[in-house]
Amino acid sequence: MSPRRSGRRPGNPDTREVILAAARTTFAERGFDAASIRVIAAAAGVDPALVHHYFGTKEQLFRATIDISVDPAELLPAVLSGDRDTVGERLVRMFLTVWDSPAGAAAVALLRSAVANEWTARLLREFLVTQVLRRVLDQLAIDPAELPLRGSLVASQMIGLAMMRYVVRLEPVASAAPEALVAAVGPTVQRYLTGELADPPGGRRA
Amino acid sequence: MSPRRSGRRPGNPDTREVILAAARTTFAERGFDAASIRVIAAAAGVDPALVHHYFGTKEQLFRATIDISVDPAELLPAVLSGDRDTVGERLVRMFLTVWDSPAGAAAVALLRSAVANEWTARLLREFLVTQVLRRVLDQLAIDPAELPLRGSLVASQMIGLAMMRYVVRLEPVASAAPEALVAAVGPTVQRYLTGELADPPGGRRA
Repeated sequence: MSPRRSGRRPGNPDTREVILAAARTTFAERGFDAASIRVIAAAAGVDPALVHHYFGTKEQLFRATIDISVDPAELLPAVLSGDRDTVGERLVRMFLTVWDSPAGAAAVALLRSAVANEWTARLLREFLVTQVLRRVLDQLAIDPAELPLRGSLVASQMIGLAMMRYVVRLEPVASAAPEALVAAVGPTVQRYLTGELADPPGGRRA
Repeated sequence: MSPRRSGRRPGNPDTREVILAAARTTFAERGFDAASIRVIAAAAGVDPALVHHYFGTKEQLFRATIDISVDPAELLPAVLSGDRDTVGERLVRMFLTVWDSPAGAAAVALLRSAVANEWTARLLREFLVTQVLRRVLDQLAIDPAELPLRGSLVASQMIGLAMMRYVVRLEPVASAAPEALVAAVGPTVQRYLTGELADPPGGRRA
């Protein structure tokens, strides 16, 4: 609403966008863990305190760069705190609840963009790994050596489900009732999280 | 190489592209089953015999529109003819063999394009349903009522695997040995094809 005033970054309406652009580049290039508010602030030419003022924590800034308003840290504890044998079902149910909601439009946009754009693909990867999968696997007390494979298998099924339901729109997955998909896909996610992933050593089937 | 000659369609170097464009539109709008060589030829303004001359069968023309040189009709019988209890593993193995090969580049391009473009999404959907899933499910003698759900669940896992391995490149799925993925994902596909998809009626777990 106010005219643009140069030389006064805090009052410059572009400052928020400058910080977001610097954050996108830094998260994509360095990954979430290695990116710091200090580095992002330097890349944007602003004080770190201003980044916190606009965006809050590093997690919040990261979600802002990919335009995702849903906070996995708020949603996941309820999913992960119940019976360990049905966590797969609860995870699929939460996933569908978010993607079927108005917030899902941003998730579909992120998925589309990740396919077209290498940087967005990196941001999506960082989001999956650091904001979703790491939390899930930490709370389920999974063998750290198996954690990356289990996490990326869960991601493959979840992203594939999103692709078929929201992008390619293959029926009947595209318009199935969420609970039908929870029943069908939940056991897959459950096995990827806590089940046997390979045949026992020396025991490959003929 | 030769100069463009208008008014002589058979010798016009653009004829092939005109037919392909008409085929893409027709397959996307009507679906594979309802699209006919006759309709495509009419849309392109050429004789149906010329379409056959350039592209062969309707299946071959369809694969040409999406730039896929691999013919599921040639690959699938070997996958489907063996032990029914391990068809999931064999399907994942064939899928990875194709996508890891030079032909996989076209598949990745199709996947990227399907995400950005509604028409390509329709073509990918038609390819999955009519060229791949229908053949798989026909040969496995699956209850026709369950066929669409089983097929689209298999597609969700396979496309999700392709997304993570070739597009988002999430590790360790991106560089895992094919057999590790066959062991991990094969049982998922097996269950989607031949296993129990929902809890027994009245028997939902608490």
